Amino acid sequence: MPVQPTREDKFSFGLWTVGWQARDPFGDATRAPLDPVEAVHKLAEVGAYGLTFHDDDLVPFGSDAHTRDGIIANFKKALDETGLIVPMVTTNLFTHPVFKDGGFTSNDRSVRRYSLRKVMRQMDLGAELGAKTLVLWGGREGAEYDVAKDIRAALDRYAEGLNLLAQYSEDRGYGLRFAIEPKPNEPRGDILLPTAGHAIAFVNDLERPELFGINPEVGHEQMSNLNFAQGIAQALWHKKLFHIDLNGQHGPKFDQDLVFGHGDLLNAFALVDLLEFGGPNGAPAYDGPRHFDYKPSRTENYDGVWESARANIRMYLLLKERAAAFRADPAVQEALAASGVAELNTPTLNAGETYQDLLADRSAFEDFNPDAAGERGYGFVKLHQLAIDHVLKAN
Amino acid sequence: MPVQPTREDKFSFGLWTVGWQARDPFGDATRAPLDPVEAVHKLAEVGAYGLTFHDDDLVPFGSDAHTRDGIIANFKKALDETGLIVPMVTTNLFTHPVFKDGGFTSNDRSVRRYSLRKVMRQMDLGAELGAKTLVLWGGREGAEYDVAKDIRAALDRYAEGLNLLAQYSEDRGYGLRFAIEPKPNEPRGDILLPTAGHAIAFVNDLERPELFGINPEVGHEQMSNLNFAQGIAQALWHKKLFHIDLNGQHGPKFDQDLVFGHGDLLNAFALVDLLEFGGPNGAPAYDGPRHFDYKPSRTENYDGVWESARANIRMYLLLKERAAAFRADPAVQEALAASGVAELNTPTLNAGETYQDLLADRSAFEDFNPDAAGERGYGFVKLHQLAIDHVLKAN
Amino acid sequence: MPVQPTREDKFSFGLWTVGWQARDPFGDATRAPLDPVEAVHKLAEVGAYGLTFHDDDLVPFGSDAHTRDGIIANFKKALDETGLIVPMVTTNLFTHPVFKDGGFTSNDRSVRRYSLRKVMRQMDLGAELGAKTLVLWGGREGAEYDVAKDIRAALDRYAEGLNLLAQYSEDRGYGLRFAIEPKPNEPRGDILLPTAGHAIAFVNDLERPELFGINPEVGHEQMSNLNFAQGIAQALWHKKLFHIDLNGQHGPKFDQDLVFGHGDLLNAFALVDLLEFGGPNGAPAYDGPRHFDYKPSRTENYDGVWESARANIRMYLLLKERAAAFRADPAVQEALAASGVAELNTPTLNAGETYQDLLADRSAFEDFNPDAAGERGYGFVKLHQLAIDHVLKAN
Amino acid sequence: MPVQPTREDKFSFGLWTVGWQARDPFGDATRAPLDPVEAVHKLAEVGAYGLTFHDDDLVPFGSDAHTRDGIIANFKKALDETGLIVPMVTTNLFTHPVFKDGGFTSNDRSVRRYSLRKVMRQMDLGAELGAKTLVLWGGREGAEYDVAKDIRAALDRYAEGLNLLAQYSEDRGYGLRFAIEPKPNEPRGDILLPTAGHAIAFVNDLERPELFGINPEVGHEQMSNLNFAQGIAQALWHKKLFHIDLNGQHGPKFDQDLVFGHGDLLNAFALVDLLEFGGPNGAPAYDGPRHFDYKPSRTENYDGVWESARANIRMYLLLKERAAAFRADPAVQEALAASGVAELNTPTLNAGETYQDLLADRSAFEDFNPDAAGERGYGFVKLHQLAIDHVLKAN
Repeated sequence: MPVQPTREDKFSFGLWTVGWQARDPFGDATRAPLDPVEAVHKLAEVGAYGLTFHDDDLVPFGSDAHTRDGIIANFKKALDETGLIVPMVTTNLFTHPVFKDGGFTSNDRSVRRYSLRKVMRQMDLGAELGAKTLVLWGGREGAEYDVAKDIRAALDRYAEGLNLLAQYSEDRGYGLRFAIEPKPNEPRGDILLPTAGHAIAFVNDLERPELFGINPEVGHEQMSNLNFAQGIAQALWHKKLFHIDLNGQHGPKFDQDLVFGHGDLLNAFALVDLLEFGGPNGAPAYDGPRHFDYKPSRTENYDGVWESARANIRMYLLLKERAAAFRADPAVQEALAASGVAELNTPTLNAGETYQDLLADRSAFEDFNPDAAGERGYGFVKLHQLAIDHVLKAN
Repeated sequence: MPVQPTREDKFSFGLWTVGWQARDPFGDATRAPLDPVEAVHKLAEVGAYGLTFHDDDLVPFGSDAHTRDGIIANFKKALDETGLIVPMVTTNLFTHPVFKDGGFTSNDRSVRRYSLRKVMRQMDLGAELGAKTLVLWGGREGAEYDVAKDIRAALDRYAEGLNLLAQYSEDRGYGLRFAIEPKPNEPRGDILLPTAGHAIAFVNDLERPELFGINPEVGHEQMSNLNFAQGIAQALWHKKLFHIDLNGQHGPKFDQDLVFGHGDLLNAFALVDLLEFGGPNGAPAYDGPRHFDYKPSRTENYDGVWESARANIRMYLLLKERAAAFRADPAVQEALAASGVAELNTPTLNAGETYQDLLADRSAFEDFNPDAAGERGYGFVKLHQLAIDHVLKAN
Repeated sequence: MPVQPTREDKFSFGLWTVGWQARDPFGDATRAPLDPVEAVHKLAEVGAYGLTFHDDDLVPFGSDAHTRDGIIANFKKALDETGLIVPMVTTNLFTHPVFKDGGFTSNDRSVRRYSLRKVMRQMDLGAELGAKTLVLWGGREGAEYDVAKDIRAALDRYAEGLNLLAQYSEDRGYGLRFAIEPKPNEPRGDILLPTAGHAIAFVNDLERPELFGINPEVGHEQMSNLNFAQGIAQALWHKKLFHIDLNGQHGPKFDQDLVFGHGDLLNAFALVDLLEFGGPNGAPAYDGPRHFDYKPSRTENYDGVWESARANIRMYLLLKERAAAFRADPAVQEALAASGVAELNTPTLNAGETYQDLLADRSAFEDFNPDAAGERGYGFVKLHQLAIDHVLKAN
Repeated sequence: MPVQPTREDKFSFGLWTVGWQARDPFGDATRAPLDPVEAVHKLAEVGAYGLTFHDDDLVPFGSDAHTRDGIIANFKKALDETGLIVPMVTTNLFTHPVFKDGGFTSNDRSVRRYSLRKVMRQMDLGAELGAKTLVLWGGREGAEYDVAKDIRAALDRYAEGLNLLAQYSEDRGYGLRFAIEPKPNEPRGDILLPTAGHAIAFVNDLERPELFGINPEVGHEQMSNLNFAQGIAQALWHKKLFHIDLNGQHGPKFDQDLVFGHGDLLNAFALVDLLEFGGPNGAPAYDGPRHFDYKPSRTENYDGVWESARANIRMYLLLKERAAAFRADPAVQEALAASGVAELNTPTLNAGETYQDLLADRSAFEDFNPDAAGERGYGFVKLHQLAIDHVLKAN
């Protein structure tokens, strides 16, 4: 393998990914449970710098305090032994039947109160382990039937809950940042905050918007057939890309959670190019964890699980290598210029120009020849082919 | 017809809807051009209170000043004769080849300047005609190829343009509100601000966010298989539903622009129920124009065009009638209560309760029995069936 | 309820539908197991004439012979007590890990052999219970990775298996008809025979095509955003509609299995209209079971389960009532005539006309005026609105 | 460019592809008309061996006989000069308003008769030019409204028309093969024979099924989110892949007609691998034209048109090169064996084995241990990663 991960790559995995036992809506588990301690050691071998978890991934739901303490102690020991960190934690508000109508937005108020407490408990643990980010995937916050959920009331309750959690984090000095993970559907018929856009819009109306951002997932946006790389660019524009979930998907169908790059390869290239070289002068556009949230296919045994974990990292690094070559190629620079890509960074108005000046500029309108300007060929196909040539190392 | 429109219903149509000549990607026009003056008279007959238009719908692109003035004078006369108003105007930044890479976000700066001028000219006319809203559909603001468009630069230019237009409107005393119309794709491979959520997120970062909202279209959100009624509820929650485009669509495919209600009938019911009776105590949730942005099918002649215009109104009024009966039915009230729908309006915290209080409330967590709470049946299917019974008048 | 089911309506349910414990990819079961004997009695109350089952629905996988015999005896007794019949049986080749790469088309030959045996055992039981149809849903026959499955070899094995089963049924005098149930994906990334069309094409190349047809499911075709009623019409045209699975779905997403009519209501209307009044002179187009293959939502307890079972029947009967009124309405007859709908039953050639005659008919081409003919308005929107008026009882 | 096309590659283009003037549903033409003679010369330069056309692509609709003859003569001369052949022709039954409700299945019988004549005229020309295949894309054969089209009558008329055309071809000695091109929607709301499966099913019920096959298009199947390579494999299994349309698409949205490989790159790889090396012992699975049916993006001028034409060929040849290396790699052979891919070619029954023998084989069922067999790891992810490594030349 020509590409080797380092800690600086910041690759992380959810405990629930490699630990997924492959139970699906039509099938029983095909793999035995994975001990979290083993997961830590294996992920360290694979090249991860961090791992993340839901409360119930680590400590089974309903465990007593003694069991819980024992599990956590063993887990910390494994982290110490490997140097792995826990950059993010999250809370399971979806598996137990009590959450069947949601956590923060269940029609049942007692469930909402219980949910807040469950999250606060996980925040305590996350803070103790040094986590910087709390991810909130509201997979059960939604509905199958339009008349069964007052959406505006649900958003009120969602906001109420998040505001409380932010207050808690600040008061306790946890310093957490909160990242909402959008998803359009599954397991609910329609989930609240279905896309990256909806989630960014929402957090802007919270009490402390600066503490809230998003954790978009490749497959979740692609389930709505949206362009993931474009959505990430908008999230970056809003400074709201707090965390990212990398995986693969084949368009609008059930949530596949394939290995990163094993779905839409060209969009994955565009994403890595953006994250790694998206800034002016080629600076990285994102410096947080590269978090793989995928499911090793149900056909695989544990050999296949670790193959798939390595495949995620390999895909990312290969695409990064290709993006670097793409950006460095003089022919690409030329094609980008011909297409006017950088020209879009030039403001439409001149420095100091006002609309009055623009109105007075006859060259902008009265003397502008749209027919002539319309003849420009943008050369986009050539540019795109050059990108693919670099993806394929075809030059 | 048991249902008759009145001015208070605020039904409006785009001039480009009934005037669509039915040219599609694989076919030539099947209908002769429609004189705007005739359109005004016919729409008044049909029951509209308003009509809307792109600059080029009324005055053909490239017309000289004399022609333009004559057309506008005739149009105003028709408005006077019928009492129709122009609640909204919009600008065509997509038909002419000059816009092939966008208007506000074309890689070509001269096109961006030209676009701003074209919009300002239409704002002048809109203001003169009393329009309150400027709709901005950025159908060409997008890309087919990820490397061909610097999305963050594009959003910068988009914001630059919109900020300038808002300044212009305020300085001139036009008092316009600006409504962005999201669409995921078509004609571009991916369009910027693809959903209602992305557009709301975006306008929050403009200089005068209070002047900007959205104009969501039924079919555009359904092209991403998103739940339209749910999206509208979120837009209302943000106070960003400035205008609405009603039509019909059959899921993720080309933009069909069917008659309102001729696509997903049950979601159309939920939408009308929300707009008309969505507020607490049954108050309307939206008081702007009910704007039909549809295309009379290419198989129809002008008789069919006017049939289809009437069908839009009829569908809306029928669904309003059914929603009123639904909301008034005691059996529905009972089912809503059993499902806890209104319970979601009760804050999760008690009045004055803090997170400390919640942490101290053992009934919320330590003594809470999730297994017992998880046995609750929410009765959502029964409630949904009652809604359909009212849609079908089956009781 | 104005509409009451009778045995003649031939409503049937899968044992796995009302018996679904509501375990989903992100959540544990929310309902206790349902005793098959209770299911029989309840379904009889609800108005079903039949019920259907997978082998493992009735007798848990791995039960010993004694247990099996006891369960079957109790089940038969319940059938006798209620008069319910078993019109169809099917085999579970998807839940156990052994089927993770498929049943008939697993890359592992021993699994393929085991699968055939498991189906033969269920055929024995089905025949004993009087079932006329064996449904084959190949949910695991597929792949996530193109290079991992030789599709043509898989189709060879699929055909080999089906040919063997047909031989077995004929030799034993079971007289079963075989109905393949297409689905595009879930649980596999891509499933073989993804649509009704693919399945009909396939069965035509089996050794005894006359014994094979399809069992299309509303939601499965709609997961590909295909028009279900149109697909059923094609299946009828091929005389391949051997069985039908009725439910509801909201377009391309995970398999929702909603109540029939709770998804795309207008297409459900078109379907019932086709099945019940689709033939010439209004004859039924299909006389097999109206089989509901749905899942009671996970939010419901058993009260909700039985509400949802009744809702399926209610929706079907309401739509049948509306379709009858639609077909009987003189205004509809007039509109159908204006649209030329029945004209399509007239052959394009005159009786006895050959292509030579057509070539000689100058009125067909040389003297035909396409521009004039192109001006015809087809009146489709008016006709569609009339249909919706009948669905809504709005006349 | 490391990869050079030859005549043996059999690359062909539609005249309507490079000649598309880039008029779309929201925009006017951005390119001047292309002279067919120039198209012939340019395509020869680009590396095509053939070109194809609709009647109206070459001779504008409504041209008189003299004009027609002149155009055809010039076209033939260009063919002679370049050596290009015309392997396929097709007929435009969609652009003129007369076809607004279809050609072969219009509710208007006179349109159906006219359509047959128009196709026969194009068959005459095709035969004269040596075409071997007639493609039939029924883009207008469909409906927007379920009650407006009697689907079974429409299929009767479709079959009637095709049977007549086959008779005509045979009697005249044209020896044409007929290839139906499926598409799910656009321009009609739903098109008849929406997928490759539906079309194969249909042609099996024609009078001379052996003369009929399909011409599937990458993007058309992907508009239904179906796996194109899998569908092609099924078509090959049925021996019905008579022709193929190569292009690119991004899932369920409008018909994008991108360059081949510019959409789902990994599925394009699987397709080329199948076509070129899909047979046993690596033999080609298809020997017909590799036909590009794409649209040069509307942003491009004629330089971009020819860039995009070359890009189609380049993508195909690059993927062919990668597929060859993939198939030749011993590590791949090993992984294929570990995954049991070739094992699927072994019949499930032993030579001469009957179902009686299978029933008697206790190792198949009674003594088979499904739990043990269920533990097998199939190694599919590793295999898939090896494929991507070859696509990316990453080894």
